[in-house]
Amino acid sequence: MSQTTPALAGKLAGLQSSAIRDLLKLTARADVVSLAGGLPDAALMPRERIAAAAAAALDDAAVLQYTESPGWPALRAVLAARETARIGRAVPEAEVFITHGSQQALSLLAEVLLDPGALVIVEDPAYVGALQVFRAAGARIVAVPLDRDGMRVDALEELLAAGERPAVVHTVSNFHNPGGVTLAPERRRRLAELAEAHGFWIIEDDPYGELWFDAPAPAPIAAYSPQVIRLSSVSKILAPALRVGWMVAPDRVCRAVELLKQGADLCGSALTHRIATDLLTDTDWLAAHVTAIRTAYGTRAKSLVDAVRTTFGDRVSCTDATGGMFVWADFTDGTDTSALLPAALDAGVAYVPGSAFAVSDAYRSSMRLCFTTSDEPTLTEAVTRLAKAAE
Amino acid sequence: MSQTTPALAGKLAGLQSSAIRDLLKLTARADVVSLAGGLPDAALMPRERIAAAAAAALDDAAVLQYTESPGWPALRAVLAARETARIGRAVPEAEVFITHGSQQALSLLAEVLLDPGALVIVEDPAYVGALQVFRAAGARIVAVPLDRDGMRVDALEELLAAGERPAVVHTVSNFHNPGGVTLAPERRRRLAELAEAHGFWIIEDDPYGELWFDAPAPAPIAAYSPQVIRLSSVSKILAPALRVGWMVAPDRVCRAVELLKQGADLCGSALTHRIATDLLTDTDWLAAHVTAIRTAYGTRAKSLVDAVRTTFGDRVSCTDATGGMFVWADFTDGTDTSALLPAALDAGVAYVPGSAFAVSDAYRSSMRLCFTTSDEPTLTEAVTRLAKAAE
Repeated sequence: MSQTTPALAGKLAGLQSSAIRDLLKLTARADVVSLAGGLPDAALMPRERIAAAAAAALDDAAVLQYTESPGWPALRAVLAARETARIGRAVPEAEVFITHGSQQALSLLAEVLLDPGALVIVEDPAYVGALQVFRAAGARIVAVPLDRDGMRVDALEELLAAGERPAVVHTVSNFHNPGGVTLAPERRRRLAELAEAHGFWIIEDDPYGELWFDAPAPAPIAAYSPQVIRLSSVSKILAPALRVGWMVAPDRVCRAVELLKQGADLCGSALTHRIATDLLTDTDWLAAHVTAIRTAYGTRAKSLVDAVRTTFGDRVSCTDATGGMFVWADFTDGTDTSALLPAALDAGVAYVPGSAFAVSDAYRSSMRLCFTTSDEPTLTEAVTRLAKAAE
Repeated sequence: MSQTTPALAGKLAGLQSSAIRDLLKLTARADVVSLAGGLPDAALMPRERIAAAAAAALDDAAVLQYTESPGWPALRAVLAARETARIGRAVPEAEVFITHGSQQALSLLAEVLLDPGALVIVEDPAYVGALQVFRAAGARIVAVPLDRDGMRVDALEELLAAGERPAVVHTVSNFHNPGGVTLAPERRRRLAELAEAHGFWIIEDDPYGELWFDAPAPAPIAAYSPQVIRLSSVSKILAPALRVGWMVAPDRVCRAVELLKQGADLCGSALTHRIATDLLTDTDWLAAHVTAIRTAYGTRAKSLVDAVRTTFGDRVSCTDATGGMFVWADFTDGTDTSALLPAALDAGVAYVPGSAFAVSDAYRSSMRLCFTTSDEPTLTEAVTRLAKAAE
């Protein structure tokens, strides 16, 4: 039998499995409260409503056939209407392209928009799924730090002034994963201006925008410029198993993505596309459903943040819980969160060390805490255990 | 706004949409009998059985969550058992990897197995979805012709003797798309020997193997060597909308594919994976269901071939209808099938000209005829119309 081919050896050596995924395998123990996950709460997913939609969809054999590469037309239509309302300009169906989760939108866009060696600006800390895609595309990656108002657009301006010419700037604009912060409106406007002045694409990756707790997320960056490609999905508001994500992008980008999608996997599932269409068009039900998720996550998030602040005081600085699925916390005394993790697991709590999301900065004293899948007493207990480990 | 980036311009110029897909758009007219399609018959898909499986699956919220990148474990288990029986050696679950249709298996494998410029051997005429993937991977493509016994392995041997060193040989071993032929057992054995002697991978692409009409397909090429990566899917026996394909490959290949799958789209749908598991484990029902498809397609195929032979006599040479979804027909008098197509559409019949599948040979006088979605009288009428157009 032949040995591993050079290409295969390269893939095995060069690609790194997500540190988070590997960690999740270690933290699945029943005695560990995991704040390390990144999953929405399956108990809040609309199982019965999806079952009804599946049954209705399966009255028609057409949902079992191959569908168009850009997605089931009715789903594109309802998303075009929703995005029109969100962005504040008419989004035609031709500019909505359905993907297998928004991760597929990212990976197809990287193929379409990036030549090897092209510069991509990411946030630091970064969404690791984006890093994985941009690294696989052979991009040169430069990070811009986050602060409490999201991406430091001033730092991006310095890079541009120094002559850097990005092809793409990637940002998780709302309730950042892992950073927990939201890009301020004035920065959105400025970022869009920079894109137009310097001719780069903005990929506005927005899976969490609907999961706001006290006030809706600001207008999307896409509201300020057609040079923004917006990504989102139903994974966080309906169910990941529908595998329905989408991009809103200019027609010529969608057509290039379509050709790649044919080679990548031909098309999505008409069945799950139709289920998503049914739920997204049932607007009264949807509004109540999303409100229920917001309320549950908001309550959990605030109890986690309260416990962290009460328990650690000045020793840990934690983002406000304004939406999404995560808060980001920093030990102000230099505690090394990677070194702390084994003791934390012994004490019965897990988190993801900041280093897992680091690009330029090391984030050695940081951690990402996910609040979606535990109730309030459990989250409070988790913080108590963390404090014990950090003593 | 910036202009189209160089990468995007390249993709738009360099990638060609499938000629078949473009043609399908033209032949959707109600007055045209289309033999140009490539779709299984939705009327034969087990709509009610899938609805029951969906309802049962949705009793458990776990089917709505993200699932493991290699696929729902129970689905991998049932496929491992089926492939064990088919290949004739114990296939462990770790060597079964679920993909979003077998097209995704092809595209991820191309990334894993091919360095740019690597040599890939394909069949001529070729499955266009494979050509698209190998071209996108930057492979050098050399074609080996088909004859009535499938790939001309002697022609491959000549290439090897001349010093060619393929990384991958791709073959649709059973009921070829578009060629309609099946690789003879002795050629399977020889091809596997060559793979071991010369250290290349065989990708045995087998979506049609279960759709035999008179006698089962021969033992897979994978029965002769572990250097064969086998692909198949439920699209042709259950439903394309489940988007369930798979590969059987050595563990190190599956692990490399897993890393790429995470970047490509994270994971498949636990919901559709579980539906497929339910149907594949209901073995008595499945056997009867697949027999019903075989009977329907076999009857249609034979009526099409009979009509072609009766109507055209020696003027058209047509493959025997032994399985799958297609027959391949050649005008022996040099009729140009691309030139004939407008007249055929005027007469109310569509087919795909051989040139759409051509790699080295031009196949100017050939055409692919799909028999899956029309009943016998309609297929006979289609041939009458074709004869009128070809007069």
